[in-house]
Amino acid sequence: MIKVPRGTQDILPEQSYKWQTVETIIRDTCNVYQYKEIRTPIFEHTELFTRGVGDTTDIVQKEMYTFEDRGNRSLTLRPEGTASTVRAYVEHKLFGQPDQPVKLYYMGPMFRYERQQAGRYRQFVQFGIEAIGSADPAVDAEVIALAMDVYKKAGLKDLKLVLNSLGDAASRNAHKEALVAHFAPRINEFCGDCQQRLEKNPLRILDCKRDRDHELMATAPKLTDYLNEESAAYFDRVKAYLDALEIPYELDPNLVRGLDYYNHTAFEIMSTASGFGAITTLAGGGRYNGLVEELGGPSSPGIGFAMSIERLLLALEAEKVELEDTSASDAYIIALGDAPKMEAMRLVKQLRDAGVSAEMDYADRKLKAQMKSADRKKAAYVFILGEDELASQTVQIKHMATGEQQLVAIPEAVTYLQKHKEESR
Amino acid sequence: MIKVPRGTQDILPEQSYKWQTVETIIRDTCNVYQYKEIRTPIFEHTELFTRGVGDTTDIVQKEMYTFEDRGNRSLTLRPEGTASTVRAYVEHKLFGQPDQPVKLYYMGPMFRYERQQAGRYRQFVQFGIEAIGSADPAVDAEVIALAMDVYKKAGLKDLKLVLNSLGDAASRNAHKEALVAHFAPRINEFCGDCQQRLEKNPLRILDCKRDRDHELMATAPKLTDYLNEESAAYFDRVKAYLDALEIPYELDPNLVRGLDYYNHTAFEIMSTASGFGAITTLAGGGRYNGLVEELGGPSSPGIGFAMSIERLLLALEAEKVELEDTSASDAYIIALGDAPKMEAMRLVKQLRDAGVSAEMDYADRKLKAQMKSADRKKAAYVFILGEDELASQTVQIKHMATGEQQLVAIPEAVTYLQKHKEESR
Repeated sequence: MIKVPRGTQDILPEQSYKWQTVETIIRDTCNVYQYKEIRTPIFEHTELFTRGVGDTTDIVQKEMYTFEDRGNRSLTLRPEGTASTVRAYVEHKLFGQPDQPVKLYYMGPMFRYERQQAGRYRQFVQFGIEAIGSADPAVDAEVIALAMDVYKKAGLKDLKLVLNSLGDAASRNAHKEALVAHFAPRINEFCGDCQQRLEKNPLRILDCKRDRDHELMATAPKLTDYLNEESAAYFDRVKAYLDALEIPYELDPNLVRGLDYYNHTAFEIMSTASGFGAITTLAGGGRYNGLVEELGGPSSPGIGFAMSIERLLLALEAEKVELEDTSASDAYIIALGDAPKMEAMRLVKQLRDAGVSAEMDYADRKLKAQMKSADRKKAAYVFILGEDELASQTVQIKHMATGEQQLVAIPEAVTYLQKHKEESR
Repeated sequence: MIKVPRGTQDILPEQSYKWQTVETIIRDTCNVYQYKEIRTPIFEHTELFTRGVGDTTDIVQKEMYTFEDRGNRSLTLRPEGTASTVRAYVEHKLFGQPDQPVKLYYMGPMFRYERQQAGRYRQFVQFGIEAIGSADPAVDAEVIALAMDVYKKAGLKDLKLVLNSLGDAASRNAHKEALVAHFAPRINEFCGDCQQRLEKNPLRILDCKRDRDHELMATAPKLTDYLNEESAAYFDRVKAYLDALEIPYELDPNLVRGLDYYNHTAFEIMSTASGFGAITTLAGGGRYNGLVEELGGPSSPGIGFAMSIERLLLALEAEKVELEDTSASDAYIIALGDAPKMEAMRLVKQLRDAGVSAEMDYADRKLKAQMKSADRKKAAYVFILGEDELASQTVQIKHMATGEQQLVAIPEAVTYLQKHKEESR
């Protein structure tokens, strides 16, 4: 037997309605915020991610699905959505549109070859937004507000927004020098990765999982202390807008994003639900004022976030929020005999044409077995059509919740059901 | 500059609303027919497709994106959706569910490395359904009805349903022998592919594009003439149900599907719109009573179809059907000055919380420039909030269609807009 590839999963109907519900909430939220959907390909030229995600990152070094196509091009299954969106912004010259920022959202599968662990998949679904072409701190607040709204509309309550500023390039360089001065004298006490990071990207030392308890970590210079005046003023505006929108946040000077073209606002949203597990981050985002240029476009400031749908669903479970399954059938039509079945086919089609969700039996089973099916399928109404009913061109309609049953002329059955469905709302 | 990979495309906001509209129609149609969504991974073990699509097919021989992951497993980006759906049916033992057939639909990207030509992409989106676990000819009619409904609801009128029966295994074997007897004496007049097909799968000779004008093609024995009694009776039932549902069809004895486990009903839906181009097929489907067994499950008859969303959109264009873009903003809020902007942020958030699609300026532009933006974004209402309005806690609300303008107290603005939106419906 051939199985689903390791680290991936099938989403079956008993789960897929949850995905649909969450995705509808996301699309509706993006619509009220006027973010429009962009769809980029599942794979990209590998170079996009080495440049756009960064070739010192774990993603690029260890986790990408890279392969050559039949034309010997190196392609990579996208590990995240920002690089592709920015590529599209540059390639289609969206920077030339009169209304900036261009506000985009994406939703779809991403791929990372990670060690298997609970709640981590090698194929996972991310929803993300990008607002590209504005350095207004009000946009930062809007982006954060949208993420929080999605979670709230889905029904989450136990949320924490964590905020930091990485400052501009000058602030970060000043901080970088301070970090090197802080760690260099004792860098031999750190892991090999950290020793390399000291040269390439000392900020990422603070991310290290192996050395996180080293005493130099707690005393490391904080980026917040190195923000220049302009950067501090920018951060103050972001906070003022969040206050105006009544969105509470915690400041965390250790929240960093490791790449050179990330700057100013960085944020994460965590679940504080008890028993949610070790990894509490639901979404992460921030400003990337250098990325458009890195990918060949004109200097265009951007900000966005990405969230995993899998983790959103896990957080809903942890908070015991039930998403409604609206896909149950309105009517189940039981036909008893060949001629009634032919009539039932027509009736089912008419119901469906009228927007009624209708189902029938395709195994020519007895009344009792079909009734059980109707129950399992949670049909609101059951139609019974035997030889007698067919002869008199009628159908028995039973309302399952009340047990009420009525004989209705076949040509009136659709209208009857629509009327009663309307009333029971 | 890094570009989108060859044969793939970005779908930008001016197009993506069309995809969303079509997908909503598809989901609604699947719901009234009680087909439930299944989501399988983007890649599968390569063996799934060599077995489930067939290793003599062009897809498997020439068109698959196959690669090894970091654990040296051979994986392939899915070229179609049926094999994955049937794999999931077997792996999750859906054959054990009390209600058969299990009715599933899928929608998502598929991948084939094809020569580039108009309307053909290497990544394309397919919607498909599979009803697995029933050999009732009524299911065949239902499957065809659903496909036709999707096209009709999308607005297509110029459609043609073409129908054939491949019969059961015994009928096909009888036909196969007749084909070999017909072609063998002059097979050296045919292309190399056809010469191989004679041994492996002579039915596929009839598909050959190079030899289609050879005189032996027109006189080849027709499968329809070799249907045994049982197969002919099955086909008669399918046709009777389609007649009952008033779905017109044309019979085409040359409509074949090349794989051994396809049998009985085969169908295609074509566009007959003038100027639609050479490839007129919109959807194709049929029965595959042997496939579940081929993939390691118990004998379970199945039927389904797949349609390309790209081709559906092209057919809509050919028939000049316009899909509505419902994503325009309801309100555009113009703020003039720093303090008004802070208030505007709050107001925009309140509108959005109330389900109103609202937008504002993030470039601190003058009134005139912001008005132009509101026009471009087709905002139904424009709010104007300057220092004067802020001082009196009011906002100017202008209805763009009529030019009417009114001064409204800020705390009442949301209710005002909701009321007027309701009235103008």
